[in-house]
Amino acid sequence: MITETDPFKGLGLVGVDALEFGGCDVRKGSLCETAHHLARETRAIDVHILEEIEDDLTLLEQDIQTGTARNCGEAIERLADCPVRCDVSIREEILEIRENLHRFREEKELTEVVVVNLASTEPPLDLQYCHGDPVAFEACLDKNDLSAVRASTLYAYAAIQEGCPYINFTPSNAALFPAMIKLAEKNNVPVMGNDGKTGETLVKSALAPMFTCRNLDVLSWEGFNILGNMDGQVLDDPKNKESKIRTKDHLLGKILGYSPHSRVRIDYVPSLDDQKTAWDFIHFKGFLGAKMSLQFIWQGYDSLLAAPLILDLVRLAELAKRRGDAGLMPHLASFFKAPLGVDEHALFEQYQMLLGYASQATGDRRRLQRVV
Amino acid sequence: MITETDPFKGLGLVGVDALEFGGCDVRKGSLCETAHHLARETRAIDVHILEEIEDDLTLLEQDIQTGTARNCGEAIERLADCPVRCDVSIREEILEIRENLHRFREEKELTEVVVVNLASTEPPLDLQYCHGDPVAFEACLDKNDLSAVRASTLYAYAAIQEGCPYINFTPSNAALFPAMIKLAEKNNVPVMGNDGKTGETLVKSALAPMFTCRNLDVLSWEGFNILGNMDGQVLDDPKNKESKIRTKDHLLGKILGYSPHSRVRIDYVPSLDDQKTAWDFIHFKGFLGAKMSLQFIWQGYDSLLAAPLILDLVRLAELAKRRGDAGLMPHLASFFKAPLGVDEHALFEQYQMLLGYASQATGDRRRLQRVV
Amino acid sequence: MITETDPFKGLGLVGVDALEFGGCDVRKGSLCETAHHLARETRAIDVHILEEIEDDLTLLEQDIQTGTARNCGEAIERLADCPVRCDVSIREEILEIRENLHRFREEKELTEVVVVNLASTEPPLDLQYCHGDPVAFEACLDKNDLSAVRASTLYAYAAIQEGCPYINFTPSNAALFPAMIKLAEKNNVPVMGNDGKTGETLVKSALAPMFTCRNLDVLSWEGFNILGNMDGQVLDDPKNKESKIRTKDHLLGKILGYSPHSRVRIDYVPSLDDQKTAWDFIHFKGFLGAKMSLQFIWQGYDSLLAAPLILDLVRLAELAKRRGDAGLMPHLASFFKAPLGVDEHALFEQYQMLLGYASQATGDRRRLQRVV
Amino acid sequence: MITETDPFKGLGLVGVDALEFGGCDVRKGSLCETAHHLARETRAIDVHILEEIEDDLTLLEQDIQTGTARNCGEAIERLADCPVRCDVSIREEILEIRENLHRFREEKELTEVVVVNLASTEPPLDLQYCHGDPVAFEACLDKNDLSAVRASTLYAYAAIQEGCPYINFTPSNAALFPAMIKLAEKNNVPVMGNDGKTGETLVKSALAPMFTCRNLDVLSWEGFNILGNMDGQVLDDPKNKESKIRTKDHLLGKILGYSPHSRVRIDYVPSLDDQKTAWDFIHFKGFLGAKMSLQFIWQGYDSLLAAPLILDLVRLAELAKRRGDAGLMPHLASFFKAPLGVDEHALFEQYQMLLGYASQATGDRRRLQRVV
Repeated sequence: MITETDPFKGLGLVGVDALEFGGCDVRKGSLCETAHHLARETRAIDVHILEEIEDDLTLLEQDIQTGTARNCGEAIERLADCPVRCDVSIREEILEIRENLHRFREEKELTEVVVVNLASTEPPLDLQYCHGDPVAFEACLDKNDLSAVRASTLYAYAAIQEGCPYINFTPSNAALFPAMIKLAEKNNVPVMGNDGKTGETLVKSALAPMFTCRNLDVLSWEGFNILGNMDGQVLDDPKNKESKIRTKDHLLGKILGYSPHSRVRIDYVPSLDDQKTAWDFIHFKGFLGAKMSLQFIWQGYDSLLAAPLILDLVRLAELAKRRGDAGLMPHLASFFKAPLGVDEHALFEQYQMLLGYASQATGDRRRLQRVV
Repeated sequence: MITETDPFKGLGLVGVDALEFGGCDVRKGSLCETAHHLARETRAIDVHILEEIEDDLTLLEQDIQTGTARNCGEAIERLADCPVRCDVSIREEILEIRENLHRFREEKELTEVVVVNLASTEPPLDLQYCHGDPVAFEACLDKNDLSAVRASTLYAYAAIQEGCPYINFTPSNAALFPAMIKLAEKNNVPVMGNDGKTGETLVKSALAPMFTCRNLDVLSWEGFNILGNMDGQVLDDPKNKESKIRTKDHLLGKILGYSPHSRVRIDYVPSLDDQKTAWDFIHFKGFLGAKMSLQFIWQGYDSLLAAPLILDLVRLAELAKRRGDAGLMPHLASFFKAPLGVDEHALFEQYQMLLGYASQATGDRRRLQRVV
Repeated sequence: MITETDPFKGLGLVGVDALEFGGCDVRKGSLCETAHHLARETRAIDVHILEEIEDDLTLLEQDIQTGTARNCGEAIERLADCPVRCDVSIREEILEIRENLHRFREEKELTEVVVVNLASTEPPLDLQYCHGDPVAFEACLDKNDLSAVRASTLYAYAAIQEGCPYINFTPSNAALFPAMIKLAEKNNVPVMGNDGKTGETLVKSALAPMFTCRNLDVLSWEGFNILGNMDGQVLDDPKNKESKIRTKDHLLGKILGYSPHSRVRIDYVPSLDDQKTAWDFIHFKGFLGAKMSLQFIWQGYDSLLAAPLILDLVRLAELAKRRGDAGLMPHLASFFKAPLGVDEHALFEQYQMLLGYASQATGDRRRLQRVV
Repeated sequence: MITETDPFKGLGLVGVDALEFGGCDVRKGSLCETAHHLARETRAIDVHILEEIEDDLTLLEQDIQTGTARNCGEAIERLADCPVRCDVSIREEILEIRENLHRFREEKELTEVVVVNLASTEPPLDLQYCHGDPVAFEACLDKNDLSAVRASTLYAYAAIQEGCPYINFTPSNAALFPAMIKLAEKNNVPVMGNDGKTGETLVKSALAPMFTCRNLDVLSWEGFNILGNMDGQVLDDPKNKESKIRTKDHLLGKILGYSPHSRVRIDYVPSLDDQKTAWDFIHFKGFLGAKMSLQFIWQGYDSLLAAPLILDLVRLAELAKRRGDAGLMPHLASFFKAPLGVDEHALFEQYQMLLGYASQATGDRRRLQRVV
């Protein structure tokens, strides 16, 4: 976790052991089984760690509610163990989610609840006028307009209405569209997204600035990702994949200032399970037109790369809420492939933004403590 | 060239077409032959470009003097076409170099001469008291103490005495030791080194900060370089290789704040000629102790990566002299594997230092022009 | 060329300098220009070699006739400089090709003409009853049934009718379907295909048997190919790509005896031009279920890998004709991704078949010479 | 295990569950601890498998005797938990080993004992006259000439004298020198070595023939191996590494018929533990002198690649003994980096030799059974 490093020590972040976990899932399977499957197939997790936390995981399962896959596309519906409900309106479904959030807060006696979207990638939502205008969006909900929402919309809306900071760790664009961000601003709720930057794109955002620093002309940047977990299975559907590739692909142009030939492929290879492997081939031109290349191969466990980022984001979102931040949190840009409201995509610059925020927040806190 | 990009447009740098080239070499072979060999073996240079500049290259050869390999170790002496001279003292040899520099300036009617060390890597010089104290060092020269100098020492000293900015593009530590830097400060001569950051180390300095930004624990960073040009041939000698590996290896600890297991190998593979190929294997530990890896393969033409950096450095050194800078030029850190007087090794931060300098120098110039 | 190695010395193969070249092309551009483009963009060919043969290339252009792209799909038609002719029947077009072949033989005073299909990959032809039965196929030609042929069909048929050995170096399945092979057998014409094995598949067919030799269980074999020449451009069309992927993909099952998860991607990356680059990721399971991996990266110039194979094939096809071979030439399996009539896909075994043939043919020749 | 595949089904090999294990070790640590360390550090072994066999492993420890590191060099002596004994002569030490072998056979009621050398790689032994002549070698033992033996010599000699088939799975050349092989022939004992072909060299012996099959000229073949287990630690000593590199490096010349530039590096990287990673860069020249490359990256668990080979070798050595084979077993060439008495290094050809042997032995057995 980056929040465990020195620059974040003086921030008064909530302790990791003070966190309580709960959630919604459209699949039934037990957490323990999933964790054991992961440990067995990829051996990414030490079995002994797993055995130690088995009881906690089992306990936690009681706080996992049946989720909704409303309008999420066939790939996700195929995975879901519960049929999409047709008997309730959007408003009713939102209400249920809000009640769940409220109950969770009461039962666990929590000062704050942070909602993080970790669901499978939905197909892109075609954004219309209502997604830019809060009033128009409310009207859509009123008339139960299913074409305007996906499951992620319902969760994001419910969270913001309940005053819960909301993080979109997925590329799904149905969660934090402009009207939703305006709602968050109005409700004084901090939100941020999209799409956690865990692997190949992380390396991309670290490496691409190098070519600028040397005025080397990137001709082509081709990325091939293979993975075999449920994320990979859902992305095997072209509609869902499109969301993902959009967030992975656009940052090159932003960093370089021009758009080289670029393609990002994500293929499902079951035997790899959670062990994402990516090969990137970068072709570039130097002095006197000489063509040269840089390739990288990334081999990482997707879930284990994501997990600490999520803990970091939860702690920083809780802090932001406490500090009275509302709407987007641009200082969290380094955590996302497509950071909302931020044009800076170079990793190191984004990290400086985070350090700057941490330094200011630490200063504010010290001043406050001194006053007290 | 980075100096041809926007941030450097308003600096009033000397035009590339205003540059005149000359030099010293311990080998005889013609420039044209070498260039054609390079074009034929690696095909890095378009033969048509070569044919266009052939006349210029031939003309240029007249300005290449016989160099000295004084105390440079056997690997370099084997390459030299002229025997190391024993009949002249160090002081006499320095005088000859100064006369060459002076004559070159006069004949070409130049306002400034910049000296760049592009010679083969010398074995490391064992630095003693005299290398820290200018007076003691002068005494060494007086008593012709050969153990205190290598060829690069003579050139650096001659350049600084002639008021010529001096750049050490090699890892040889016999050029810019503390006493030499003090001499440069005293003489108002800007100097900088060591070791141009052209390939594998460039990538290293762009990638290593990524692990810090994510609090990922680097366990091992192993680098294997293969190349086949004369640089590779000289580095095949363990004594000369030691200089190189020192500058390539130390920056990881500086960037990460701790020293992972790390080894840098450089092997001579004749068939590759100038096409340096490097494989780096980076082993790191993430959440719950999961081990993951990042590998990269760099394939670049060493000479063509170095050439634009050298033009950049020459232009920026000439500017520094004009602006009255004396001693080390820390703003040039991004060009070097082991930037003298600079602790920052992260590429992007070093680049910000350069941009900051460019921005200030542009401002100064505008103010000056307004005054005029 | 493999035919220049020792085992082929005693075969009495036609000398390379005795070969005359001619052909058909649907594009107009000059050979010299194409060759210079290749030399300039990929620098795969030494410009000096090119300059030496420039006159020959220009002369050769006179023997390049306008080709046909009949029924070859849009991707190829877009490239063609001449519109597909609608004014002539299939039979008439075949007749023209036969006349061209005949004239070429007469004019150059050749004892044998070998036809090699090097055209862009066509979309797969849906094989019907007529493609298995020579009589039915002739009936198709009679009634000018366009759905039964593509350009490659016309050339193959014309060649075989003219008694010219025919080689299908492409994956297009419209050339050597069963009825065509029967025709070749009847006419005493040796033929062979499909799809020259130049790069990634070559490595595949050398490496896959290793897993069998060690009883290691291949879980997944994922191949990503990027290239930027006209071949790549045509393969960017999904219909044409399908032909290619069929021949590249099926051999794993044949070699291993089971079908691991496998996918072959071919993407068009213009900056690479002829420099095909392929990354293959092979995931396998060993003792106690441990998952391990082998990756390879192939970087080769496609045209320069194909050229010597084509010369080899021409020489060996001419020999086969002289020896009275008719129909398929299974001893040429090692040259093809999908060797017709051969189930053996392991490279080394295929090579043994070629050596066996060479050894027998050499023996036959010696006996004959002794008799004479 | 290859002996579990079809071609070996009819051979009447000893069942794996009929095997009893014992051994000698110079280190004390428990087998269970070592196995758990391996499982924890590399996660190559499923912890549940380990837990199942824990009792067996503990039982097995009783059959592990204190070994000897006589004359094995400092790197091994540093690892040994018992000092090298100076109080006994070579003859006495051999006698003890023979007694151990005898006792093991009696206690376990075994029909055959096969001895496999799996010890750390010793520095190369300088072979002298006595290593070629059995009589001279006996004389060396008589006069306790320590310069003529290393630990592996003692074990090999003891095994052969006890009539036990002997396999040298290491590169140590002190085990099976000519005089030892002659002794094996005389005693009707089958023996074979050297150096199990588990990883990088396995790939090499599968790939190198490809270049021959295509008449592509290999210019350079550079191999970089990194690993972190005890094998890697011992190989970190230049003297021990020399043995290893000898067996890894020589096969290229044998397969290709010429010796390209080649270097094999093995570096110790503790964090990798048993997960050997190798990068090989192969530079080759094709048509018109075009330079191309093939790289491969091998990532395998060394112990898990070796284990099934050892079981295979034990079963095949027992069979050989039963069939009356004496001296070298050339049909086992595919298992070794430097197969004794065999000039064939191409993997696939070696595998054919094994299949040929299996087929003949199966035939012999059927004939015998029919007679009975």
